[in-house]
Amino acid sequence: MHAIGIDLGGTNIKAALVHKTFGLVNTNSVPTEAEEGKEHVLDQISLAVKPFLKRRNRVLGIGIGAPGTIDLDRKSLIHPPNMPGWGIVNLRSVLKKRLGSRLNIFVENDANAAALGSGHYGAARNYNHFIMVTLGTGVGGAIVFNNRIFRGETGAAGEIGHMSINYDGPPDMTGVNGAIEAYLGQRFLTGHAREFLIKYPKSSLYTAPGLSNLTPATIAGAAMNGDPGATEILRWAGQKLGCVLGGVINLLDIRTIVIGGGVSNAGDLLLTPVREVIESYIKPGMRESVVVIQETLGNEAGMLGAASLVFDQIDDYNRKR
Amino acid sequence: MHAIGIDLGGTNIKAALVHKTFGLVNTNSVPTEAEEGKEHVLDQISLAVKPFLKRRNRVLGIGIGAPGTIDLDRKSLIHPPNMPGWGIVNLRSVLKKRLGSRLNIFVENDANAAALGSGHYGAARNYNHFIMVTLGTGVGGAIVFNNRIFRGETGAAGEIGHMSINYDGPPDMTGVNGAIEAYLGQRFLTGHAREFLIKYPKSSLYTAPGLSNLTPATIAGAAMNGDPGATEILRWAGQKLGCVLGGVINLLDIRTIVIGGGVSNAGDLLLTPVREVIESYIKPGMRESVVVIQETLGNEAGMLGAASLVFDQIDDYNRKR
Repeated sequence: MHAIGIDLGGTNIKAALVHKTFGLVNTNSVPTEAEEGKEHVLDQISLAVKPFLKRRNRVLGIGIGAPGTIDLDRKSLIHPPNMPGWGIVNLRSVLKKRLGSRLNIFVENDANAAALGSGHYGAARNYNHFIMVTLGTGVGGAIVFNNRIFRGETGAAGEIGHMSINYDGPPDMTGVNGAIEAYLGQRFLTGHAREFLIKYPKSSLYTAPGLSNLTPATIAGAAMNGDPGATEILRWAGQKLGCVLGGVINLLDIRTIVIGGGVSNAGDLLLTPVREVIESYIKPGMRESVVVIQETLGNEAGMLGAASLVFDQIDDYNRKR
Repeated sequence: MHAIGIDLGGTNIKAALVHKTFGLVNTNSVPTEAEEGKEHVLDQISLAVKPFLKRRNRVLGIGIGAPGTIDLDRKSLIHPPNMPGWGIVNLRSVLKKRLGSRLNIFVENDANAAALGSGHYGAARNYNHFIMVTLGTGVGGAIVFNNRIFRGETGAAGEIGHMSINYDGPPDMTGVNGAIEAYLGQRFLTGHAREFLIKYPKSSLYTAPGLSNLTPATIAGAAMNGDPGATEILRWAGQKLGCVLGGVINLLDIRTIVIGGGVSNAGDLLLTPVREVIESYIKPGMRESVVVIQETLGNEAGMLGAASLVFDQIDDYNRKR
C-alpha cells in the first residue's frame, strides 16, 4: 500500500511516496512561494506530488501536514500562518478537483503529523501512547493515545509550547508569561545562550557561528563537540523541559516522551537533564516507566506521518466493517 | 433505571440510590472505620447499601468512587491511601460475593466520579468535554472528553494538583516544586492566608475562626461576608488556578472548566480572578469560548457520578449492539 505524504511548510513543500510497511520510497521538494498567493501554492502542491501520481493506481491517497489550526474533519486549513490571503480553505476539496476525486485526502496540523510519523516509523513505533515535543522556531507538541492523535474539542490540542512553567515568568511571542516557548523557542534559547556564554569566554560559539548567529542547531553541535558553555545551555534547557513534561504526565498519565527538532540533535546532552528532573515534577506513584527518547527522523517524520493519515483511515474503516 | 452510588471516604461511606433521570432518591451514611481493617470496611459498605438493595430488582448495579489509583478495568483499588492493610483489592469481585453476582460493580477514582456526577447531574451537564478541579485537602482533577473520563495509560490521569506553575517554586506535600497544590492545597492556602492577613489587621478571620483554625471554607465564608482580606486571598488563589488551567487548555483544547470543593463555595469571588487571568495563559486562537463555572453539588457529585458508572456502561453496551 502506498500513499503520498506532504509537509506543507512556509518555505518548501516536501512530498514523499510512502509505502505502508517500508516507509519512504521517494521524495520531492518544491518551493512554496507562499507570497504568490493561494492558487500558486496549490499549483506547487500539484507539482510536488505529480511524479508520484504517475503510478496513480497504487496511491491510495494524500496526507498533508500543514501549519496552524486544522478543522476537526481534517479537511480545512484555518488561517494558516505565513500563508497570506488563505483564510479558511477546504484543502481536501480543492485538491480533489485538481488531482482526482478518487484520492483520499486528509489534512493534519504539522506537529501532529510529525508525531504520527514518529509513532509509525520512528522512535515511538513501539509505543501506543506518547507525547511528542518538537523544538524548532517554536515549541510544538502532540498527544498520541491508542495510536491516534488526541485532538480536543476543535482540533487544536497539543500546544505544549504555550504551557507556563512560571506564572510570573517572561512572556513568549504570544504574551503567555513563563510559557516553555519563552525559554526554548529559537529566539529565546539563543538569547539565554548569549547570557550564559558570558561565563564561558573560551566557548567555541564566540567564533563559530558567532554570538549573533547562534541557532539551536549550532548550540547542539558545539555541545556535541564538548563545548562546556553549550553543554550548560542544554542542561538548563533540559531542566525547563522536564518541568513542563512532568506536568503533562501528571495530567495525561501518558508516560513516554519523544523529543525532536533542532536542539534535540544533541541527544542525551539534552535528554539526560530532562530525565534527571522530570520525576521531581511528577506525583509519586506515576513516576514508574517514564521514558524520554529522541526522535531522529527529522523532516521525514512530517511526510511519513502525513501519509499515515491515509493508512490509519483505511485501517479504521476496515476495523469497523 | 436505578443504581447505587458510593463515595468511599476515609471517614464516612456515603451511599445513594440514584435514578438515572432524576438523580438522588435516597442517601445513607455509615462510618468507614478504616482502622478496623479491610473486612470491616467491606462490612460497612454492605451496611451502607443494604437499605437500597431491598428493592433489589430495580437496582442495576453499584458504582464506587474511591481514593487513590484504580486499575484500568475499574474493578480494583491499588493501595488506597488512608486504608491500612488493603494492598490491591478487587472490590468488584469481593462485593459481588457479598451482595449478589447479578449486580454490575464499577470502581473509579473519587475525583473522576465527582466529575461524572457534575457532567450528568451538575454544572457540567450541558458540556460533553470539560476539566474538573476539586479544591479540598489537596487539589484533585479529572478530564471528561466525549462524556467519558480520560484515564491515560494506567488510569491515573487528571492529577492537575501536581502540575507545576513555577519550576522553582515551593514544594507540595509530595515534593513537586511549584505544584498548584503547593498554593491551593488546604494546608498551603491557609498558610498563605495567614501571611496575607498581616496586611489586614481588621479581618474577621482573626476572631472567627482565628488564624490557627483557618480552613478553605472559613476563608470562603469570610469573603462572602465582604471581608477584604479573605477576598484578597481568593483573588490570589484564583490567579494561580488560572495559570495551571490555561496550560491545561493549551494541551487538551478542552475549554470548559468546572471548579468544585471547599474554597469554590465562594463562587465568583474565586472564579472571577480565574477568568481574569486564564486567557493570558492560553495561546491566542484558543481563547474563544473558554468557560469557567462553579460546581455546587458538593458531596453529592461523588455519589451521583459513581452511580453514573453503571448507567454509562449500560449505554455503551446498548450502543455497541
